[in-house]
Amino acid sequence: MFSKRVDGVKASEIREILKLAARNDIISFAGGLPAPELFPVEKMKEVSRYVLDNMGEEALQYSPTEGYVPLRDFIAGRMAKTGYPTNRDEILIISGSQQGLDFAGKIFLNPGDTVLCESPTYLGAVNAFRAYEGNFREVDTDDEGMIPEDLEKALKETDNVKFIYVIPDFQNPSGRTWSLERRKALIELAGKYRIPVVEDNPYGELIFEGERQPSIKSLDTEGLVMFLGTFSKTFAPGLRIGWICASPEILSKCIMVKQSSDVQSSSISQREIAVFMEKYDFEEHVETIKKTYKKRRDLMMESIEKYFPEEAKWTYPSGGLFTWVVVPESIDTKELMERTLEETKVAYVPGASFFPNGGVHNTLRLNFSNMPEDKIVEGIRRLGDLLKKEIAL
Amino acid sequence: MFSKRVDGVKASEIREILKLAARNDIISFAGGLPAPELFPVEKMKEVSRYVLDNMGEEALQYSPTEGYVPLRDFIAGRMAKTGYPTNRDEILIISGSQQGLDFAGKIFLNPGDTVLCESPTYLGAVNAFRAYEGNFREVDTDDEGMIPEDLEKALKETDNVKFIYVIPDFQNPSGRTWSLERRKALIELAGKYRIPVVEDNPYGELIFEGERQPSIKSLDTEGLVMFLGTFSKTFAPGLRIGWICASPEILSKCIMVKQSSDVQSSSISQREIAVFMEKYDFEEHVETIKKTYKKRRDLMMESIEKYFPEEAKWTYPSGGLFTWVVVPESIDTKELMERTLEETKVAYVPGASFFPNGGVHNTLRLNFSNMPEDKIVEGIRRLGDLLKKEIAL
Repeated sequence: MFSKRVDGVKASEIREILKLAARNDIISFAGGLPAPELFPVEKMKEVSRYVLDNMGEEALQYSPTEGYVPLRDFIAGRMAKTGYPTNRDEILIISGSQQGLDFAGKIFLNPGDTVLCESPTYLGAVNAFRAYEGNFREVDTDDEGMIPEDLEKALKETDNVKFIYVIPDFQNPSGRTWSLERRKALIELAGKYRIPVVEDNPYGELIFEGERQPSIKSLDTEGLVMFLGTFSKTFAPGLRIGWICASPEILSKCIMVKQSSDVQSSSISQREIAVFMEKYDFEEHVETIKKTYKKRRDLMMESIEKYFPEEAKWTYPSGGLFTWVVVPESIDTKELMERTLEETKVAYVPGASFFPNGGVHNTLRLNFSNMPEDKIVEGIRRLGDLLKKEIAL
Repeated sequence: MFSKRVDGVKASEIREILKLAARNDIISFAGGLPAPELFPVEKMKEVSRYVLDNMGEEALQYSPTEGYVPLRDFIAGRMAKTGYPTNRDEILIISGSQQGLDFAGKIFLNPGDTVLCESPTYLGAVNAFRAYEGNFREVDTDDEGMIPEDLEKALKETDNVKFIYVIPDFQNPSGRTWSLERRKALIELAGKYRIPVVEDNPYGELIFEGERQPSIKSLDTEGLVMFLGTFSKTFAPGLRIGWICASPEILSKCIMVKQSSDVQSSSISQREIAVFMEKYDFEEHVETIKKTYKKRRDLMMESIEKYFPEEAKWTYPSGGLFTWVVVPESIDTKELMERTLEETKVAYVPGASFFPNGGVHNTLRLNFSNMPEDKIVEGIRRLGDLLKKEIAL
């Protein structure tokens, strides 16, 4: 009765863990949720009122598929922060950047085609591309990004590579950020083999120290990069507003599939965000988020340093929401999850799901944005104790 | 560079016409827009305030893929109006019913599979299914619905039929409504051949006279019907909120693809609609819309009767947004469109796009919900005059 593609998509394991982790007595490092206490609820009241007072009918009516022009203009200008100022003709408003992943699969993949991705990579992207029957070739990845030699090997030796998928800033799940050198190597290889790049950038704004690296889009002279951005981590995910920034050639395909997928994103939410940007200082708002998350990152990293067994290794994220832990191979973090929940009331995400081709069982992802400070220290302490006990077994 | 599926999807012709038709000096019968002056703007202000005051953080946060429980409960109960009261386990909230069409394509169609559809049928559905490389077999259709003999012939003789797509109430584009007898014949044949039915029902609430026919879903004893509903025509399309009502077997596949397509629909809009339903009388609101649209339908039909050439034929819709006109075969309504816009400043949608396999050029669709009364009379008069001149040529 059903299509082959839905036979290939499994219900996300993470989703089941997240359901358990949502219990009040659990200290959860499992989700990827922004801190709700930082949502601009009061300002949203003003903005929502303003939109309904001044453009109520148009905010409730159908509106163009491409998106609300003032919002597209704002986003186009603000792409300068990634080193790529542009204009609205390269911007399509979408319903969160997950929709951009869906569209990448939809416009590029025929069944059996291959996506080159980091190892590990974002599970939500894997599921989006699997829905178009894509396969994955994981490219060797270290703290600086994909290793160019292995990327070129993959480009040369793999049949039907349709695009390269990367999250260069504060990657989900690893928390790692690509060096400039690797960004340049990537865009050079993409150009040499004429292969598009899907640059997924939900976390880039949340930088805690140092200079932001230029986006891969900003290094793109041939229109090969499809950049995905979102307001989910800097404003509010509940509104479901993100964007694609791409050359007109790629964007026109995205507009076509947007039309048949859901016609347009919310008329009212697009106007609310645009009015917010006019009335309030968005940069200041982002600074507040960064300050809170940096404090939580610091606390989590200090606690890990203090409580985790010396046999474990972890990344030190300079932004974003996540750190990534590698424990000794004797530990299967998926098997350990249930017991961790029961014995310590702490939740994490086992890392296995982030390797599309499987085979790695001793990793886990920790989120630091969504728990208050005291719970971060307590949760990491409990998790550290449990890991030490496991290793001693 | 691109997938086969996007080679198959063309930018909607209607969309280009709609851009022209949006000019202020045009009397447009082309769109399918609800009347914006009936949007509950003042009540939305109250509702939006209430949601942000009482559940601001959760309204801006991520929320479950399935949808907001009180809204799912409300919809499940209200499905009783179609003869099928159910519970939330059969309801998934989606971003407008166009997303339900996309999901139908996604969960049922492999490339080259066939959809059985009415003739004519809804262009937006055709584009959604084409994006999964579906083919179409148009089933002979008259004023009562699909003709069962031809439907059975199609089921018997066509390879890889994956589902039957129908809009049984006030169809887009034809304005026609299926008789009870034909509904029963359809569900019987679907059961006999074990083929799912996608019942698209955006207009069923907008009934101007007579009794509402039971939905095909309400006649479905085997869980074969995937019913699509929406608040776009009874509340506001700008919020992008609709639903799928289906058996858990079908719905679980839809939830999986919802997750990878856009994670969830707007947390805040779902809560706003749910609160609206609690605080205000939705039935009364729907009655107001019906009253206005009935008046406009009456006026359009009287004017057509008065001003259209006797060689033309048209349907008499007892609800919804559209009527459908067949003119003599000598007239190609697509060719005539540009001249009509120029000479009469009136816009309609040429009917050719509603026949997925082409071949019919002498039809047009007229919308009566979006124009004020005086423009309806004037626009139909001008269009009638032009058609008479064309026929006289």
